[in-house]
Amino acid sequence: MNYNTNNTSVRLLISCHDQPGIVSAVSTFLHQYKANIVQSDQYSTDPSGGMFFMRVEFEMLDPDFDITMIRTAFTEIGLSFEMDWRMELASRKKKMAIFVSKEDHCLLELLWRWRAGEIDVDIPLVISNHPDLKEQVESYGIPFFHIPVSKATKQQAEQEAIQKLHEHNIDFIVLARYMQILSSDFVGTFPKRIINIHHSFLPAFIGANPYAKAFERGVKLIGATAHYVTDDLDEGPIIEQDVLRVNHRYTTEQLRVAGRNVERIALAKAVTWHINDQIIVHGNKTVVF
Amino acid sequence: MNYNTNNTSVRLLISCHDQPGIVSAVSTFLHQYKANIVQSDQYSTDPSGGMFFMRVEFEMLDPDFDITMIRTAFTEIGLSFEMDWRMELASRKKKMAIFVSKEDHCLLELLWRWRAGEIDVDIPLVISNHPDLKEQVESYGIPFFHIPVSKATKQQAEQEAIQKLHEHNIDFIVLARYMQILSSDFVGTFPKRIINIHHSFLPAFIGANPYAKAFERGVKLIGATAHYVTDDLDEGPIIEQDVLRVNHRYTTEQLRVAGRNVERIALAKAVTWHINDQIIVHGNKTVVF
Amino acid sequence: MNYNTNNTSVRLLISCHDQPGIVSAVSTFLHQYKANIVQSDQYSTDPSGGMFFMRVEFEMLDPDFDITMIRTAFTEIGLSFEMDWRMELASRKKKMAIFVSKEDHCLLELLWRWRAGEIDVDIPLVISNHPDLKEQVESYGIPFFHIPVSKATKQQAEQEAIQKLHEHNIDFIVLARYMQILSSDFVGTFPKRIINIHHSFLPAFIGANPYAKAFERGVKLIGATAHYVTDDLDEGPIIEQDVLRVNHRYTTEQLRVAGRNVERIALAKAVTWHINDQIIVHGNKTVVF
Amino acid sequence: MNYNTNNTSVRLLISCHDQPGIVSAVSTFLHQYKANIVQSDQYSTDPSGGMFFMRVEFEMLDPDFDITMIRTAFTEIGLSFEMDWRMELASRKKKMAIFVSKEDHCLLELLWRWRAGEIDVDIPLVISNHPDLKEQVESYGIPFFHIPVSKATKQQAEQEAIQKLHEHNIDFIVLARYMQILSSDFVGTFPKRIINIHHSFLPAFIGANPYAKAFERGVKLIGATAHYVTDDLDEGPIIEQDVLRVNHRYTTEQLRVAGRNVERIALAKAVTWHINDQIIVHGNKTVVF
Repeated sequence: MNYNTNNTSVRLLISCHDQPGIVSAVSTFLHQYKANIVQSDQYSTDPSGGMFFMRVEFEMLDPDFDITMIRTAFTEIGLSFEMDWRMELASRKKKMAIFVSKEDHCLLELLWRWRAGEIDVDIPLVISNHPDLKEQVESYGIPFFHIPVSKATKQQAEQEAIQKLHEHNIDFIVLARYMQILSSDFVGTFPKRIINIHHSFLPAFIGANPYAKAFERGVKLIGATAHYVTDDLDEGPIIEQDVLRVNHRYTTEQLRVAGRNVERIALAKAVTWHINDQIIVHGNKTVVF
Repeated sequence: MNYNTNNTSVRLLISCHDQPGIVSAVSTFLHQYKANIVQSDQYSTDPSGGMFFMRVEFEMLDPDFDITMIRTAFTEIGLSFEMDWRMELASRKKKMAIFVSKEDHCLLELLWRWRAGEIDVDIPLVISNHPDLKEQVESYGIPFFHIPVSKATKQQAEQEAIQKLHEHNIDFIVLARYMQILSSDFVGTFPKRIINIHHSFLPAFIGANPYAKAFERGVKLIGATAHYVTDDLDEGPIIEQDVLRVNHRYTTEQLRVAGRNVERIALAKAVTWHINDQIIVHGNKTVVF
Repeated sequence: MNYNTNNTSVRLLISCHDQPGIVSAVSTFLHQYKANIVQSDQYSTDPSGGMFFMRVEFEMLDPDFDITMIRTAFTEIGLSFEMDWRMELASRKKKMAIFVSKEDHCLLELLWRWRAGEIDVDIPLVISNHPDLKEQVESYGIPFFHIPVSKATKQQAEQEAIQKLHEHNIDFIVLARYMQILSSDFVGTFPKRIINIHHSFLPAFIGANPYAKAFERGVKLIGATAHYVTDDLDEGPIIEQDVLRVNHRYTTEQLRVAGRNVERIALAKAVTWHINDQIIVHGNKTVVF
Repeated sequence: MNYNTNNTSVRLLISCHDQPGIVSAVSTFLHQYKANIVQSDQYSTDPSGGMFFMRVEFEMLDPDFDITMIRTAFTEIGLSFEMDWRMELASRKKKMAIFVSKEDHCLLELLWRWRAGEIDVDIPLVISNHPDLKEQVESYGIPFFHIPVSKATKQQAEQEAIQKLHEHNIDFIVLARYMQILSSDFVGTFPKRIINIHHSFLPAFIGANPYAKAFERGVKLIGATAHYVTDDLDEGPIIEQDVLRVNHRYTTEQLRVAGRNVERIALAKAVTWHINDQIIVHGNKTVVF
C-alpha cells in the first residue's frame, strides 16, 4: 500500500543487471538532492549476477523542487549502470480508461473505490461494446462511450477506441470483464499498460468459459487472475491471483456468481499497485513491491 | 470431521437417480431397526431428475446389533431405488498402505497424525522404491518394504507390491509423494482406492516439475491437489485442494519447500475424509460430505 | 448457498431435544404430502441426549399445494417431539430494512448484490441518522428516511423508526455500519432479527474504535464479525467471521480502509444465509446450515 | 524467507529516529567495505519524524573479510544517527532451546523442519516439565532434560533451567506448548528472546483454555498467535497470527485438534523469521521484514 501522495513524494523504479554499488549510488544521489527515502525495496534474481530491481519512494525536502532537473541529473547514474528506470511524481494522477461489456461487478468495484478515495486516479472515460452500463457509469459523472464490435468492424472499432484513448491522454487501460480479444496492434499500442482480469486461476482454464471448465473438472477452489495483456491470450505477466473455496454443490452459474467476488478484489489490488508504481514487469513476470 | 467411532456407529453411503421417497424410505428403515440418525447429508445434482447422493451416520441403540443382518435387510430398499450403496462400521479400522519415494514430509504428516490418534486407521506397511526412509518408518513400528523400480522391472515390482497389499488385506493406498507412475493394471486393481497428492493446483501444471513450471509462469499462489488415481495422469477425481501465497522472491527450490506445507495438509484432509467414508466418487468428481 | 426459489420450494427448520425417530417422522410426513426432499442438514450437539437441529428443503410435487394446510398438518409432529419449528416458502421475499450512518461500503455491497439478483429480498426502506447517503440510496429506487439521533431524542427516534418498520412489515434489520447503540426496547422488538457487522474479530476489540485498538496491539490479522444483536453489546450470536492479513506498515486509517473489504463480504454472507433460512439461533450461538 | 547463508552473508538491523541520510550513509559504508547489498527493507512509522527501521542483507566480496573489523567501523555511523543496531553473520547458527510439556505437535514440527534443513539452527537441548516426550526428542539426537515444576519448586526449577541454558550458550527459547507461566526473573533473563505460541487469536481469549472459551462464544474462526514473551501474560509483541475456519459442529476437543495445525504453522514461521534476523521489536510491536 502507498498513501504518500504529498506533492513532494516521488517514486523511482529501476531494473538493471546486478552489480555492486547500485544502492549506494542511488541513495547518495538522493541525499545530495535533499530527498528523504521513505521506503525502499529491492530484489535480485540471483545475487551472483542476475537482474536487479528497485523501487524507492522519497520525499523532497524542498517543496519547490524541480522534478525535470532531478530526472536529468539522475540520467548519469542510469547510464553508468545501464538502468531501465523511471521517476514518477506521486501527486500526478494517472489517467485510467475502463473497458467493460455487460457484467458490472468489476467496473462498479473500481468506481466505488475511486469515489471512496481508495484508488487515486482520474477516469476520463469508460468504453463498452454494449450500451447496457451507460447510465450507471454516467451517474458517477464519467463519460461513457459505446463502441460496438463485430467481426467485420473490429479493426475500425479498435481504431476508434485508440483515438478516444489518445484524446484523453490515457496512461493505462483496465479490462473490467471486457469480453473481446484485443488485436496485436491494439496491445502493441499500450505495452505493459493494459490490465485484464481473467476469471480463473491461470494457467488453469485458459480461454473461454473457465467456470464451466472448473465445474466439469470438479475443482475445490476457483480463482481469478489479474495480469498485463500481451499478444498471447491469458499468458501475460501475472500481477495478482486469488481463490475461493467451493464444493460439489456449486453449479456453473453459482461458480460464476461466487467468482465475481474474487475477480473484483484481485483486479482492484492489481489496479492499485499499478497506480502506485509498485509493479516492475520483467519478461513474462512481475515484481510487485 | 467425524469422531463417532463407537462400536454402534454405522455409516451408510448411497448414490442413485433422484426420485421421491428416498430419504423417507431410508430413515423409516433405520427407525424400524432401532438406529438413531446422528448426521445426514444429501446432495442432488438437479432436483428435477439428476443424481442423488446421501451419507447417513447412525447409532444402533442395541449394542449387540448384527450388521450383516441389517445390510441384508437394506438390500430390498437398495434394489427398489436402484442404489449403489455401502454400509460401513465406524469401528472397523481400514487398512492403509503408504507408498513413498525419498521426500518424507507427507509420510511423516500421516504417521504423526496416526500416532496422535487424529487418523483412525491401521497402517500395516509402507512401500518405497528407495531405501532412504526405512529407519524413520520402522521407528513408528511399521514394516517398511523396499521395492526398487526400474523401467525393466516395473511390471514385476508392481506385482510384488500387489501381492504384499493383498497379503495385508489393504483397503486403500496413499501415494505420499511416490514418484512413479502406476500402470493401468495396478490402478485397476484398486479402483477409487488410491489417493495421490499432486504438487500443484490442478489442472494447472499437470505432469512433472510443477514448481519449476509455476516459477516460469510467475504465479502468485501455489497449490496442491489430493485426488483419486485413475488411468489419466493427474486427471482423477479431485478430493481437496489448497493454495499458499508466494511472490517474485521465491526460487523454484523455495516454492518446493513452501509447497510441502500445502501438500501435507491437503493430503491429510483427503485421507481423513476417505477413512471416515465421507467421499462418494461420481464420474470424475467427488462429493465430500 | 441456496438458489431453489421455485414457487414450490419450502424450507423447514427444527430445534428440539434429540430423540430417536425425528428424521424418520419428518421425512415420512413429507413423502406422504408429496414433497421431494432436495436438501437436508442436521446437527446434534451430543448424540447421547443433547439438542437436535434440522433444516430440510423440499419441493412440493403439486404446484397448487396449500402451505397453510401443510403447516397445520405438521403441527402434530411438532407437538409430539416438542419442536420449535417454522416452515417458510422460498418464494416469499423477506422484507429487509437497512440502517446506516455515513460509511457507505456495507450499504452499497448489499444494494449492489440486491440489484444483481444475488440477494433475493425486498428492501422497502433505508434508515439513517445522517442525511449523507440519501441520494445514493434513492438512485436504487429505495426510500431513504433520515431520522437524526441525539442523546435527548434517542427514544423518540427509535419509536419513529419502529413505526416505519412496522408500516413496511419489515422482517429483519441489517445494521450496515450504523453507529448508534440500540436500546433494549428496540432490540426486544426484533429478537434474532437484527444483524450487525462489527469491525473486528470478536471477541477481540469489543466496543468502539477496534481498528485503533488493533493498531495499538500490533495484530497481524484484522477481522470482521457479523452477528445477531442482543442486549449485550457485541456479545450476540456470531453468524460469520472473516479476517485479512496486515502488517506493521498499516496505519489505523489503512487498517480501516482494508477492513472495509472484510466487513462487506462477511455481512453479505450473513444476510444471504438469513434470507435463505439457513440459520438457527440456539442460546448465544448459531447453527448455520 | 531467507536462504542466503553463504559464509560471506551478513545481516544488519537498525532502529533509530527517522532523519535524512541514513540509507545513503549505510549503503555508502557497505560499498566502501566491498559489500554487495542483496536485500534491503526499511520502514518509517511516520515520514515526518517518527522511528526508522531497516534490515540490510549483504554479501562480502572478499571471502576473508573480518566481521569484527566491520562492526567496529560501523560504530561511528551507529553513533552519529543514535542507532540501535546489530550485525549478524548468516553463517553463525543460533542456538535454540525448546521448552515443551506433554503435547508434541509444535515440538515435532520444529524438529522435523530442522532435520529437513528448513530451519537453520542448532538445538542443543529440549527442556520439559514432564518426561513424556523424552524418547521422541532423543531419537533426533537432541538431549532432553526433565525439570519438573511444582508451586513449591518453581523458582528452583527455573534456576536449574537458566543454568542449563547458559551452559549451552542458548540464543533464544521457544515455548512449544510449554504449559507453565515463566516468572519475571526468567523472562528478564532472556528479553525479546523467548517465543511463545498462544492457542488463540490474541487478544481474544487471553489466558487458559482458549478453545473452551472459543466454543462457548461460538466463533466461526479459531486462531493461534506466536509472540515474544513479556511480563504481561499473552500481551507480548505479536510476531505472527493465523486462523482456521470452523463451524457449529466442532466440540471443544475438535477445536483443539484442528487448532494444532494453525499453532504449529504459525510458530514455525515466527521461529524461522527470528532465526533469519527478520524481526525488530519496537515497544509492544514487531516489524517483520
